[in-house]
Amino acid sequence: IGQPEQRTTRLYSHEQPATGPSRGSPGGTLPSANRTFPVGVALGLAWSAMGGEPVYVESATRRKQSGQGSIVCTGSLGEVMRESVQIAHTVAKRYIRQYSSSKQDSASEEAANFFEDHEIHLHVPAGGTPKDGSSGGITLATALLSLATQCPVLSQVAMSGELTITGKVLPIRGVKEKVMAARSAVGVDQIILSRHNQGQVTELPSYITQGLTFHFVDTFEEVAALALYKQKTDR
Amino acid sequence: IGQPEQRTTRLYSHEQPATGPSRGSPGGTLPSANRTFPVGVALGLAWSAMGGEPVYVESATRRKQSGQGSIVCTGSLGEVMRESVQIAHTVAKRYIRQYSSSKQDSASEEAANFFEDHEIHLHVPAGGTPKDGSSGGITLATALLSLATQCPVLSQVAMSGELTITGKVLPIRGVKEKVMAARSAVGVDQIILSRHNQGQVTELPSYITQGLTFHFVDTFEEVAALALYKQKTDR
Amino acid sequence: IGQPEQRTTRLYSHEQPATGPSRGSPGGTLPSANRTFPVGVALGLAWSAMGGEPVYVESATRRKQSGQGSIVCTGSLGEVMRESVQIAHTVAKRYIRQYSSSKQDSASEEAANFFEDHEIHLHVPAGGTPKDGSSGGITLATALLSLATQCPVLSQVAMSGELTITGKVLPIRGVKEKVMAARSAVGVDQIILSRHNQGQVTELPSYITQGLTFHFVDTFEEVAALALYKQKTDR
Repeated sequence: IGQPEQRTTRLYSHEQPATGPSRGSPGGTLPSANRTFPVGVALGLAWSAMGGEPVYVESATRRKQSGQGSIVCTGSLGEVMRESVQIAHTVAKRYIRQYSSSKQDSASEEAANFFEDHEIHLHVPAGGTPKDGSSGGITLATALLSLATQCPVLSQVAMSGELTITGKVLPIRGVKEKVMAARSAVGVDQIILSRHNQGQVTELPSYITQGLTFHFVDTFEEVAALALYKQKTDR
Repeated sequence: IGQPEQRTTRLYSHEQPATGPSRGSPGGTLPSANRTFPVGVALGLAWSAMGGEPVYVESATRRKQSGQGSIVCTGSLGEVMRESVQIAHTVAKRYIRQYSSSKQDSASEEAANFFEDHEIHLHVPAGGTPKDGSSGGITLATALLSLATQCPVLSQVAMSGELTITGKVLPIRGVKEKVMAARSAVGVDQIILSRHNQGQVTELPSYITQGLTFHFVDTFEEVAALALYKQKTDR
Repeated sequence: IGQPEQRTTRLYSHEQPATGPSRGSPGGTLPSANRTFPVGVALGLAWSAMGGEPVYVESATRRKQSGQGSIVCTGSLGEVMRESVQIAHTVAKRYIRQYSSSKQDSASEEAANFFEDHEIHLHVPAGGTPKDGSSGGITLATALLSLATQCPVLSQVAMSGELTITGKVLPIRGVKEKVMAARSAVGVDQIILSRHNQGQVTELPSYITQGLTFHFVDTFEEVAALALYKQKTDR
């Protein structure tokens, strides 16, 4: 069975927004700033000898698993990337627990226990393309957080950064290739990177950075604030 | 997706202290002697053909697991280092059980059972950099003890030493490179090593050891007494 | 992170006795015949192309595991030595069950079920040094028996012998090197070997055997009788 080198670049780029203005508001197209991916999806940036490429991370719940939540991942992920998934799982779990503990309603409590109570399936298309590395960290955690909160990720945002267990965002390599990859993704005009990558971006020629807004962050809290569309979907 | 060779040297070096003086005390900056890492983090020292390097060990709880506590580790750790994590888990578990058994309150009992009742996630950034060896023993156990007690580790302290199951601290190799690595970590001025490494430190030229305080220890009890900031964080 | 080739020769050699005379007896130093290792520790003898070396076996309980006791081992042990650990676990389990069944009190019953009710961690320092072979059998079982009974092992005793599941002690190779290794361990003056090794010991020159007492045994029962200090520690 051959391993197709599928171009997943446009996988979600022409999506209609999954969320809209609150009910009762007049219809019509949303401004691009409010367009989102489906819940559980986030856009990362990969880099290889072939150049950069947008990479979508998808997640979904598989089943209830009260008190023993786990995560299954697919997409020909290597050892390092599988560990990144574990880290993203731990970070998203702590984030949502802290975020929810400030509220007292039962919906918040359900959200707080989301990762403990579900088996999650995380996939990175195309399934036959081998992937590895730690730079997907923040994308993986953002996708999981979207799934847990049911808040979709803004589709104008791409991101790349390693994540540590305490939620710090480490720099990535291949900044130039990844920024060019972000340009190639329809609708993307914002890029989240580690503050430690700021120097490399400053050195890029303006024809590459033109029209893009860069956000340099230290922690996953900042990533979540920038990437998540704050409105919960109605399902 | 490339595997960045990230410098994690300054990952926590500019941290503000995670704990402060007790409530009600006058504000202001803490003296550096009271600055700490976040709870669950400790600073070790690695050594390779490339020289020495500070290495942070991070830990976090993943979920409740009453009576069957376990530990998951990430960070491209080799076989020997994975075994060191098991040893650190065993040693920290016994330490906290003995430490807590002297008190009678319910908080102490909860702490005593911490490792039995939680799945723990231990990570050593950068995720894509392969790591191995047994010299991280005391750092791993200190990070775990910090997590269990919620007492943070002093950020002026770096350490390197193999740990045995009974809590003895064995010597490490690459003393010179590791001491130089400790120098390079901002704010570090104390180093904990096995007593069996005392001879090698004595032979180092003074321009390397200048300004550093060395603690040579026999047991993990001494490490814990030197490294942990005795005040529990408020969370 | 380098893998230090640590000399663990003196790991426990200068230990103060872990147990003492019964309470109320006059103080003072114990005769060396009553000095012991910490509970769960026994001294074996290794042999390689580099010569012989004392090797300590350490064990500790990890957690309660009612009715499904297991054993985890660390210390870069090879396949054959891992199997030796399984055999030692089986032999120690049967030994303590037989030994305890003669008494009727609840403490004896708890001891009888010790291996069924605990996950045990067995470690052989130094962690980074690969070890293999079947000659550690009686040392492994003695360390486990010490842990289960809380009776420490006499620190004047070193031992080497393969163990079968029925408790028979088979001969080992490298007798000369191992006897010399035992000499190098401070305080050791008794060596336990299989009766089938008696011939090789007789042929050793007297400058090697001088001052040492040899015990040649057929079964693990004899090993336990010779090595365990019969007084339970007070903890």
